[in-house]
Parts: sequence; C-alpha cells; structure tokens
Amino acid sequence: MSTLRGACIIAQSGGPTAVINASTYGAIITAMKRREITRVLGAQNGIRGILDDNLIDLDKEEPYELELLKYTPSSALGSCRYKLKDPAEDDSDYKRILEIFMKYDVRYFFYNGGNDSMDTCNKISKYCLEHGYECRVMGIPKTIDNDLAETDHCPGYGSAAKYIATSIMEVYKDTHVYDIGTITVFEVMGRNAGWLAAASALAALKGCGPDLIYLPEVPFDFDRFYERLDYCYKRNHNCVVVVSEGIRDKDGRYIAEYASTLAQQKDSFGHAQLGGLAAYIADLVKKHTGAKVRGIELSLLQRCAAHCASQTDIDESFHAGRAAVEYAVEGFTDKMVGFQRIYSHDGQYRCDIKLIDLEKVANKEKFLPVDWINVTGDGVNEKFIDYALPLIKGTVNIPTDDGLPRYAKLRRIKATV
Amino acid sequence: MSTLRGACIIAQSGGPTAVINASTYGAIITAMKRREITRVLGAQNGIRGILDDNLIDLDKEEPYELELLKYTPSSALGSCRYKLKDPAEDDSDYKRILEIFMKYDVRYFFYNGGNDSMDTCNKISKYCLEHGYECRVMGIPKTIDNDLAETDHCPGYGSAAKYIATSIMEVYKDTHVYDIGTITVFEVMGRNAGWLAAASALAALKGCGPDLIYLPEVPFDFDRFYERLDYCYKRNHNCVVVVSEGIRDKDGRYIAEYASTLAQQKDSFGHAQLGGLAAYIADLVKKHTGAKVRGIELSLLQRCAAHCASQTDIDESFHAGRAAVEYAVEGFTDKMVGFQRIYSHDGQYRCDIKLIDLEKVANKEKFLPVDWINVTGDGVNEKFIDYALPLIKGTVNIPTDDGLPRYAKLRRIKATV
Repeated sequence: MSTLRGACIIAQSGGPTAVINASTYGAIITAMKRREITRVLGAQNGIRGILDDNLIDLDKEEPYELELLKYTPSSALGSCRYKLKDPAEDDSDYKRILEIFMKYDVRYFFYNGGNDSMDTCNKISKYCLEHGYECRVMGIPKTIDNDLAETDHCPGYGSAAKYIATSIMEVYKDTHVYDIGTITVFEVMGRNAGWLAAASALAALKGCGPDLIYLPEVPFDFDRFYERLDYCYKRNHNCVVVVSEGIRDKDGRYIAEYASTLAQQKDSFGHAQLGGLAAYIADLVKKHTGAKVRGIELSLLQRCAAHCASQTDIDESFHAGRAAVEYAVEGFTDKMVGFQRIYSHDGQYRCDIKLIDLEKVANKEKFLPVDWINVTGDGVNEKFIDYALPLIKGTVNIPTDDGLPRYAKLRRIKATV
Repeated sequence: MSTLRGACIIAQSGGPTAVINASTYGAIITAMKRREITRVLGAQNGIRGILDDNLIDLDKEEPYELELLKYTPSSALGSCRYKLKDPAEDDSDYKRILEIFMKYDVRYFFYNGGNDSMDTCNKISKYCLEHGYECRVMGIPKTIDNDLAETDHCPGYGSAAKYIATSIMEVYKDTHVYDIGTITVFEVMGRNAGWLAAASALAALKGCGPDLIYLPEVPFDFDRFYERLDYCYKRNHNCVVVVSEGIRDKDGRYIAEYASTLAQQKDSFGHAQLGGLAAYIADLVKKHTGAKVRGIELSLLQRCAAHCASQTDIDESFHAGRAAVEYAVEGFTDKMVGFQRIYSHDGQYRCDIKLIDLEKVANKEKFLPVDWINVTGDGVNEKFIDYALPLIKGTVNIPTDDGLPRYAKLRRIKATV
C-alpha cells in the first residue's frame, strides 16, 4: 500500500483503566520511531481536544516520563464524555475535525477507548473518506468491562480482574477470622456484561472467594437468592456474595434502581436511605438473616488500581498501541486492534494481534457465554476460569518514590502550526 | 532472671491487619528456636481458644507454610470479640484459663492484638501472679488505627497508610481525567484517632491527594466544611475530601450517627457501629454543590491489603513478635513490645524495640498531636509527613500462584496433652 506521510493525533476516551496509558505509550513510542509520522500530537480530553484545537506535542516530552505511562493509571491525555452528533443531521463537529486535521496535516488518528470511541473512529474515518481527505484511523481498545465484540478480551480487563480477585481474597480472609458468622456483599462494575463479577471466581479457585456470584446475564430473583444464601450461611456460618452493578430482575429492571428509588424515601428518623447496590442488598440480607452483614462497593478502585495491575495486561495493552501505529503506517485504516488467543502445543497461552473492522465493534456488546455460567445461575464454571486465568498473570513492579507510586509527569506543551 | 521452662500459647485478637501474621510468625519461629519453650501452641480465635481448650500444635506446621504468614493478611489463628469479665465480679474465665495453662504447662502467653487485648493480657498476668502460677505474659501490638499509647507507632499502621495513600492517588488520577468537575469523598477508618485519615496527606505530597482531610481530633462543622469545599471546587473544578469514620460535631456526636440509625447499635465492647458516612456526606455535597459527587468507603480493604503492604511494616511487625518471645525468655513479663524511633546522624530512620508496662497501654488511646494539624483544621502539616513517610517504605513482593496471592495453609492439628 502507498506511503502516507504526516502528523498523527493520539487521543483517549471513555472511563479510564489501570493500563490505558500503556496502550497510549505503545502508540506514542512507535509513532516516534516511524519516519512516515512527522509529528506526534496528543489531543487533550479526547475528541474535545481536537474540536477545541487543544493539542500537545508529545515529541517534546521527556522519554523517561513517557515510559512511566506504562505504570500510570487513568487517562494521561484526559478523557471526555462528548458524543459526536450523527453527521447526517449535523456535521459541524466533523467539519471542525477535518479543519484541525488539515491545519496540522494529520494523516493518522489513533483513538484509545471503548465501543463509543470505536463508533467515533468509524464516523470520522467515513467523513474523511467522503471528503477526499486521506487519514488512517485506528481504534485501540480499552475497557475493564471486557465487553467489546470480536476480540478475545480487552486491554484493561486483566488488571481489573486481578484487582477484584486479589481484594476479594484479602477481604475473605478478613471476614473469616471470627467465631461468629458474617455475610459480605461485594458490588463490582459491569453494567450489562458479567465479566468483572465473574473474575471474583478466580478468588474462589484459590479457596478465598465468593459462594454466590450474580451476573447481569442471569435474571436476579430475590426468593432464589435468599434460598441459596440461607443454604450457604447455614452450612458455613459465613457467606460471600458478589453482585454485578448491572443485575436486573426478570422484567429487565436494574436492581440498583430499587436501591435508588429507596434513596428518595426517608426512614422513620427522617434520614434518607443511602448507598448503592451493595448497601441495599446488604441491608436486605441483614433483615432476612439477622446476621452481621457488610456491603463493600469496589467503586472506582477496581478500574485504576495500577499497583495491582496484571503484567500480562500491561504488555498486551502496550502491544495493542504499537500494532495500531504499525498497521496504520502499512496502510490499514478503519480497524480496531483486537486480540486472538492461541494456545501452543504445550498449552501455553499466547495472545496475537488481529485487526477488526470498526463497524463490527462500534456500539456492540459482548456478554459472558451462557455455557460458562453454572447450572444454578449464581457462578461460573471452569470454562471461564480457563479463559481468565492467563489474563491476570504477572506481578507488576511499579516505580516508586518514598514508597508510593511514581506517575508520569507530562509537560503538555501546547502544539502550534 | 531465672530460667522458666514450659509451653507457650500464641493468640491473636481484635480486628485483623495486613501484617498481624508477620508478628505472629516472628513469635512462632523464635519460640521454636528457644529451648526454654518446650512446645508452641496456638489458641484458635483468641482467648476463646483457651477457654474452649481449642489449641493447635504450631510445631507440627510445615515451615514453608508458616513463613507464608509474613504475607498472609488477617488473623491466621482466628480472632474473637469476647471480652473477659472483671475478675473481681466474676473470675470463672480466669479460673478456666489457669486450668488450661496448668493442663499444658503453659509458662508463656503471647497476645497479638490492640488495646483491648493489652487489657486482657494485663488481667491474666495479674491473676496468675495472685494465684502463684508463674507465667510470663507479653503483648504484641497490632492495629491499623495506630492509637496505642507509649509506642511511636503500631504494627499494621504503615501498611494501611500505604494502601490508603496509594488508592487515593489512583482514584485521584481517575477523577481528574474529565473536562467536567467532580467531587470525591473518601471514608477511612479510625474511630477516635485520625492517623489513617491523615495518611491520605501522603498522597497529597505526591500531588495526587485530598484537598481536605477531616479528623476525629477536630470538631466537624458543616458550615465551615461547605465554605472550604466551595473554595476548593471553584478554584480547581475538582475536590477530593477524606473523612475519618470517627468525625464528630462540637457536641461529640458522631457524624456517622446522623447518617445511619445503625450507629445506635453497639457491638459487644459497647462501641457504636459506624459506616455509611461517605455516602451520607457525598449526598449532602451533591445537594449543596450540584456537582458530580462520588462517595468511596475504603471499608475492610484498608486493613487487609497485604498485596500493598509496607515492607518496613512487615519487617517491624516480625521483629515485634520475635522480641516478645526473646524478652519473655529473658524474664520479662507484663509488658507490651513497643517501638522507639531513632534517627541516625545522617537522618536515616531506624526503629528500636522498647518494652512498655501493659498498664500504660491497656484501654488507652493516642491521638494525633494538635500541632500536627494544619491551622484550618482540615489537614496535617509536615510534622505528620516526616513521621509517616518512613513507615510506608518498601514494596512487598508477595508469593503468588496463577497471578494471585499464595497464602499460608495451616494444618491446625488439635493439641492434646
């Protein structure tokens, strides 16, 4: 394919992860090495940085600081929640993007994000094509939710899964020290797909995990839940429950909505009932069993715990960023970098890169396969374990200063033409 | 002093920590090496294990598994919330303890716990003395709260402080990626003393920490809080707030009590049950500012995060356990092992062991010094930073299996005479 010379823009979008910067670093360092790419620009706050002409010269950053991106959680270039309009209705955003691309002679655009971002990539790519402006557009996936279609797994998932399993193992140990029973309810992320909740089963594999795991893929039934809970609690005088934030009843209503409706009401003391799903379920369980119950929401901690990242995830995330740039320079466009799992003849896990059409991933979701869920609908089987275990391997050794993480400090020098 | 030969009992009590087992391991391995100690017994679930004659032979455990205790969070021997009665009123528990001591010829008792446990040690020691039974009793401190009197700091605090500072740094990064402002409210433990909340200032030292820290030592005033919050949020379009679970209004009422009627319930020590404060404050802040607000409770995670332990804390905890046994064999009794901070002439931190009379620590609390709190009463100054920074140093390399922690597996062989 033809050689295309020009600047590149790298941007990040959506909710951050522990390793999104590892992907971005992979793209930056590779772009810097390719002579076809004349300038490496970063857009601040995703697509907004392009619309606002708020770009930085990544070439001017200190190499050591850039390297620290591999261990720096969250989105170093900033993120945004801005959604581009449908160009058929209003193409002003696209006009502006094209204007900025032309201003800086941008011929490569790399967008590091989730499925909304892949949709954005797709639309920008099409718009450029329709307007005769050659620009190669590549999506670099990231999401702890692991719900992108077509790829074996997503950068960010392995680290979140490792953090969830590790934290639950620790709390399991903590809640099993007393001679009196306790029930612990964990709430983990995952609005529609149960990948993160399922990761808690890895803790169970090590003997320190949940007895019951509730996934968005299985309709949540309170009676059935109490029945299973009573059985576990009677047998072990202890029970650890994991619920996905996205569990729904048989009518498709989020259980978390029950909780937030309750939050509007006041108790007999005039206090609002507070808290999310974990607190809500914990409260119900307390009333049902009379046991000591604690609700723990892993909240943002699960998506930014770089100190407990999976080295496999960091390496793969870096490779995804690198591959995006290399394939684009070779001539590919309108693709998302994905992962293909390969097992060697001795059973060793290996992850290869594959390119996926943006159209196939934009605005799509991937759910936990039905045959990976156990027969009682409150856990996963060994198919999930086999899938997830290779993704959490490798302990990271993050650079530290005074015993605390040393994160990348970028100079963020504003780009000018 | 005279040589005393006999068995020893090691027990753990109170809320577990990430490193309590490191202390217990220090005691076990040292006891095994001393010929004066003829048998190393563990009491299951603290003092209850003695009352129930539920002892295990620690000598029969695998050495490798015992060594893993250094990296295994929570109380490996089990804990209890049982409080011994006042012997003047009812000495049946003490009679029973003495009976068990005599049954196994126990001449050394090591109790690894917080200030309640030091009180238990003290009472048992006095009872033995009054009844002419020679038994050397030593307390080995542990508490993430860092509130034991007479010692520079407590085993367990450094690891909890490191986890709190690290987690807040990560979430700080996460909550600063968007172009729209957010307010984050963290709730950390610490019923009456602000040591854990203050640890969040270490994150601020690295540029990723809270703007406002509320300690139990400073009466909490809502008007003043809103004023400071508005100032921060207007300036930065972002604000990170840390509240100790133990913050109280000027009349001494816990703010957590406002949040939940559950706070009226008391545990078996007569302490009010706290929790739900982060959600409560977050809700108030949302109403006050209209901003996007998130409450995060670090919950049990902060006291059991062995994967993020401070190596300094592990080493010191181990030494505390070892010293307890060595001093007891030398003839000391009725003491708690404490830490003395020493700075060498080149400014290097060093921690020496000192012995403290149990009476001086039993049922006492140590608060954050007033002159370590900043003038606005919502943070700490460099005196705290200088104090805390050496305690969190050293990254731990926990043994893993499949990318997850490998914890000690004890055989727990029931002891018989």
